[in-house]
Amino acid sequence: MDAAEFRKRGKEMVDYVADYLEKIEKRQVFPDVEPGYLRPLIADCAPQDPESFEDVFKDIEKVIMPGVTHWHSPYFFAYFPAASSFPALLADMLCGGIGCVGFSWAASPACTELETVMLDWLGKMVNLPEEFLAGKDGQGGGVIQGSASEATLIALLAARTKTIRQIQSEKPELTETEIMGRLVAYASDQAHSSVERAALIGAVKIKNVPSDDTFSVCGSALRKVLDEDKAAGLIPFFFCATLGTTPCCSFDKLLELGPICNKENIWMHIDAAYAGSAFICPEFRHLLDGVEFADSFNFNPHKWLLVNFDCSAMWVKKRSDLIGAFKLEPLYLQHHHQESGLVTDYRHWQIPLGRRFRSLKLWFVLRMYGVKGLQEHIRKHIRLSHQFEHLVLQDERFEICAEVVLGLVCFRLKGSNELNKALLKLINDAKKIHLVPCNLREKFVLRFAICSRTVESTHIKFAWQHISQLATDLLKTWEQNHHQQ
Amino acid sequence: MDAAEFRKRGKEMVDYVADYLEKIEKRQVFPDVEPGYLRPLIADCAPQDPESFEDVFKDIEKVIMPGVTHWHSPYFFAYFPAASSFPALLADMLCGGIGCVGFSWAASPACTELETVMLDWLGKMVNLPEEFLAGKDGQGGGVIQGSASEATLIALLAARTKTIRQIQSEKPELTETEIMGRLVAYASDQAHSSVERAALIGAVKIKNVPSDDTFSVCGSALRKVLDEDKAAGLIPFFFCATLGTTPCCSFDKLLELGPICNKENIWMHIDAAYAGSAFICPEFRHLLDGVEFADSFNFNPHKWLLVNFDCSAMWVKKRSDLIGAFKLEPLYLQHHHQESGLVTDYRHWQIPLGRRFRSLKLWFVLRMYGVKGLQEHIRKHIRLSHQFEHLVLQDERFEICAEVVLGLVCFRLKGSNELNKALLKLINDAKKIHLVPCNLREKFVLRFAICSRTVESTHIKFAWQHISQLATDLLKTWEQNHHQQ
Repeated sequence: MDAAEFRKRGKEMVDYVADYLEKIEKRQVFPDVEPGYLRPLIADCAPQDPESFEDVFKDIEKVIMPGVTHWHSPYFFAYFPAASSFPALLADMLCGGIGCVGFSWAASPACTELETVMLDWLGKMVNLPEEFLAGKDGQGGGVIQGSASEATLIALLAARTKTIRQIQSEKPELTETEIMGRLVAYASDQAHSSVERAALIGAVKIKNVPSDDTFSVCGSALRKVLDEDKAAGLIPFFFCATLGTTPCCSFDKLLELGPICNKENIWMHIDAAYAGSAFICPEFRHLLDGVEFADSFNFNPHKWLLVNFDCSAMWVKKRSDLIGAFKLEPLYLQHHHQESGLVTDYRHWQIPLGRRFRSLKLWFVLRMYGVKGLQEHIRKHIRLSHQFEHLVLQDERFEICAEVVLGLVCFRLKGSNELNKALLKLINDAKKIHLVPCNLREKFVLRFAICSRTVESTHIKFAWQHISQLATDLLKTWEQNHHQQ
Repeated sequence: MDAAEFRKRGKEMVDYVADYLEKIEKRQVFPDVEPGYLRPLIADCAPQDPESFEDVFKDIEKVIMPGVTHWHSPYFFAYFPAASSFPALLADMLCGGIGCVGFSWAASPACTELETVMLDWLGKMVNLPEEFLAGKDGQGGGVIQGSASEATLIALLAARTKTIRQIQSEKPELTETEIMGRLVAYASDQAHSSVERAALIGAVKIKNVPSDDTFSVCGSALRKVLDEDKAAGLIPFFFCATLGTTPCCSFDKLLELGPICNKENIWMHIDAAYAGSAFICPEFRHLLDGVEFADSFNFNPHKWLLVNFDCSAMWVKKRSDLIGAFKLEPLYLQHHHQESGLVTDYRHWQIPLGRRFRSLKLWFVLRMYGVKGLQEHIRKHIRLSHQFEHLVLQDERFEICAEVVLGLVCFRLKGSNELNKALLKLINDAKKIHLVPCNLREKFVLRFAICSRTVESTHIKFAWQHISQLATDLLKTWEQNHHQQ
């Protein structure tokens, strides 16, 4: 395919994508396929000779679309949102066209420098303390990671290295292995599984800190496990606080936890993967109070800030902590400018070496929506979640299971877990909307997350009427069965 | 921006990208900017109100392009190629439009299933042993990682977990920490820095195995370090063999190394990040002989197979080894089908949780080029590297520093490292072409990598004449200075 054909096909693809997103509402949100559906639909191996674009293009509807879960359908209320917007799609086209690999400043200065400045823009939007910004000569700064999992892992590894070095300088008789064996990381019992995974990868112990009855970790809970572990000779070194937990969007109490971490010399990382985007609205910024005690902070514009996946924003107060943990410098990656204070080589900030020009997406989205446009998007979602909450509250068969702070509503039928599992199965089998569940303590709970950029009040009403009707049907048979037993 | 405006702007962006790539030759391959160039060119913070697409669009040439290193210029001979093709760009547009996050089968079945089948296609193209393929009920299979660094890390972590479990089942008295302290990984002294980094992250020792005078690791060299380390009570558990090293594209001797690893119960991972694409040509497939002894194998279609970054293909013989190392299963990620043998939840195969629909790129590229089209691309690059090699060999001031097997030529002026550093500086300061250096033992060497999809024989001739002229100029002054001293 040459440039001339690309011009033609590219424009067809633009129209296809525009059509897809404009009419996504008409597609069934969750596919009908069974595992293994795709293999029989395509050849056993790659063709020897080229196929035409038309051949490939017509297979999109035939092979791909029947198996797609439509994350941008206004009937998609599962997981958390995956951001999508037209400015971000345009920026990604440019990113692909330039196709640079920005592992060092020299590998494409624009790729590195735009990222640094965009993370400053974004940091200012959520009113991060100055120390997290790169500015012209700051010690901190931001980086785009692929996912919150990577940000957590990077923070944990940086903390591990820092702690080992500190302890070895105080007690040179201890080996690295001995120290490693005593390190402990902590996170809420509500934290994302990626925190446990980071500890698993980093080969350190991790302990859950019990959350309170609002599913938040408070200072006294952390204090208690720290005291026990220190008494047992362990070395606490890392605490991952969560703002907006995955099960129910609860918030750990940073203002209590931060001072404890600082006093105990524990790296505090804040995972605000979903909730972080809301902090661009002044009325939600208080949820981030206490970030000043943290060493690193992360949230995902690719969840809720209209920047397509992947764009996970991470800031650190001391970039030297990250770089110190990873820097390895072979000759083919060295370049003339690297000793300059102005130069950032992002490969030392992340797991992969290569990286795409992802900051273009931030640049396009922040400029073409403006802060106000993005605030509007966040506020709309939060209004809609409260709308759903009110509908649930008006139906006394149901209960709300956690405070609705942002765009997630946790709810369930009053009754057994089996009853709620049956309700969820009815909902997802009907495939008019799509939800996923969570556990809150012993309770099986349904999560209703406002996801799509184009979801409106009518979709919420429809979803609720649908759920309510299925509940009515279910309760009828359920009571009969229950009666018979 | 609504869909109607996206249709308009998307088409403009398609034309911009087509123009950029069509006329890239006219742009200076390496930018003139100094560190910190970008910040003064843009605002201090994000705008409150939306800006127009036009405003953003005109800044591409004003702010971004002056700082871009043009990886797809036919005058770019640095690092290794970054793949780019029009079919891949089209697929990425579709990927962005669908915008699903495929962490589990249910999160978008097409995303998972196409990936599994595409990795089978690709595995067959390089004639991987059957065990590495997923097929309908295989124990192995492939996955797309973001980079070779991640593939190496995942392999090392899987090997670590497997070894610890094995040893603990034999000697339950040993703690995990004790075992960890004795584990050792190995790689060639020519291996990529990401191998050392993987060991650093995984908190295990790593040792270099000395390469021979062709920069390859042979069996006896590995045997020697293994024997020494085992005698010292260490536990060898992981060997990363490199096919196509970054400095000079040398090849470790799999047929000698593989049986040793198998006998010693050492996980053998093969990193063929760059070279792997060449194995689709029957005349280069012999370089992969011995892969049958490996546990995992990785190469980067995003380097040399015309699939835009990121697409790093990794295969394992036993998928249970990966999954066993990472599987954590919170309720919100569980789904109805997950116990089925047909279902792959790729989140257990990688570091991040989220993932884009990257297999679309493979599907588009493999079909629209066909195996023959891709073979042609590889063969053209290798022809051009030999063309450059011959030009160097005809000039007795220069020497070739390593066998030219694929698309990389390592060369230098006969003489001191300082002389060659001066030559490289002249080349990169002139900015007509772009190269990076490497060290081969004590020698400072220039790397000439065939990179661009559109590079032709005329560009090679131009590059050589330019280098040759700069060498003439340099040698003149160099001899004078040398004479004066």
